[in-house]
Amino acid sequence: MSTASKRLVLIRHGESEWNAKNLFTGWVDVNLSAAGEAEARRGGELLRERGIHPEVLHTSLLRRAIRTAEIALDVCDRNWLPVRRSWRLNERHYGALQGKDKKQTLEQFGEEQFMIWRRSYDTPPPPLADDSEFSQAGDARYADLPPELLPRTECLADVVARMLPYWYDAIVPDLRRGQTVLVVAHGNSLRALVKHLDKIDDETVVGLNIPTGIPLFYELDDDLRPIKTGGEYLDPEAAAAAIEAVKNQGRR
Amino acid sequence: MSTASKRLVLIRHGESEWNAKNLFTGWVDVNLSAAGEAEARRGGELLRERGIHPEVLHTSLLRRAIRTAEIALDVCDRNWLPVRRSWRLNERHYGALQGKDKKQTLEQFGEEQFMIWRRSYDTPPPPLADDSEFSQAGDARYADLPPELLPRTECLADVVARMLPYWYDAIVPDLRRGQTVLVVAHGNSLRALVKHLDKIDDETVVGLNIPTGIPLFYELDDDLRPIKTGGEYLDPEAAAAAIEAVKNQGRR
Repeated sequence: MSTASKRLVLIRHGESEWNAKNLFTGWVDVNLSAAGEAEARRGGELLRERGIHPEVLHTSLLRRAIRTAEIALDVCDRNWLPVRRSWRLNERHYGALQGKDKKQTLEQFGEEQFMIWRRSYDTPPPPLADDSEFSQAGDARYADLPPELLPRTECLADVVARMLPYWYDAIVPDLRRGQTVLVVAHGNSLRALVKHLDKIDDETVVGLNIPTGIPLFYELDDDLRPIKTGGEYLDPEAAAAAIEAVKNQGRR
Repeated sequence: MSTASKRLVLIRHGESEWNAKNLFTGWVDVNLSAAGEAEARRGGELLRERGIHPEVLHTSLLRRAIRTAEIALDVCDRNWLPVRRSWRLNERHYGALQGKDKKQTLEQFGEEQFMIWRRSYDTPPPPLADDSEFSQAGDARYADLPPELLPRTECLADVVARMLPYWYDAIVPDLRRGQTVLVVAHGNSLRALVKHLDKIDDETVVGLNIPTGIPLFYELDDDLRPIKTGGEYLDPEAAAAAIEAVKNQGRR
């Protein structure tokens, strides 16, 4: 490996308690399931086995990503890393769908509308009311955000728009200093980041699935573009199987 | 409580695997024991019950403090806090005693020498050789430290000298910004901090024992001095009992 390349590792958090229950989660702050904790440990083992040593950690403000990072770094003996967190790495805000059962939502609104909300690049679901039990409007962790920044719903295009400033302002400087950077985040915030890195167009990115818990390793050139498009999963067989499973499942 | 006061919470990590084995630990990076994890959970519950909401976390670079903070903040639903870590909050470096059995050391060197190393303010044990299995000379987490800063042994006076710059440069600015600050660290780094806060003299501080896992809460005035000397343990009965137990035990 070139010593001049910049090294970036992405990990999508493992299964949460609501994945297992088939509920729309978004910004609702649910825990990892036991299976999700096991995925996080496996992610840490892969880093250790491959000798990839992150030097700084970036996470979202959601506990399923934070716990995934804590567990993975504990396993590879690097839980002492400097940590940065931002709402800009949070999962896509799922608007009025947050807390709803996916199957019931499908039956209630029909497959066409359901798939638009799930897979359209730029159509967000209806906004979530601030007085909903699934709203984050009163959450202490977002208290410093001006109200106009706190999302009430998001499409993937919104996630790209709010994630990119964090990439440029917080992650890129760490890469430029030569640090190996670990980002532990979510399906859609990582999709947004990979879209940017690999220059994936709006239509293609909605079909991109990043498997949970398997570190995705990029080496970047001086322009911070991947030396190998798509990077490299540290367990490529498991990643390929997970991506195939999602395809066959059709609607996830 | 005055809204103008600065709020500081100190937690000493819970029992480690080497506390249970009666070995000198210092900078050796041992895990919490199951009992230590339970102490950390109790610490988080006390914060939650008392409605004390830390807004920023400072830890050492040692996993027993890091895990204590992770567990306590998970329990009180604040594991999303900004985190800062520094070797300046590490436990006292125990020099050549690191990794040694306390009882064997007592027998080998005699009680007088043993108590000087354990309780003298300014007499460090002999330095630890860099090629010892218990040395941190090659540890990745200290790779950025100039070699003259990495301790090979320390007395409590040394801990005070290396801890205070972190207090002034990293913790005080957070307090000045009005944030409630949580510091999760070690017997001697917290002893050094309390010595400074409560203006305890060199002879008295060596007898100061801070119980593990019980949050010690200080409100500070505009000069960053305690409004109440000694602060307040969030479980005062348990703290008093733990302090009494150490006294009666004689040599801990």
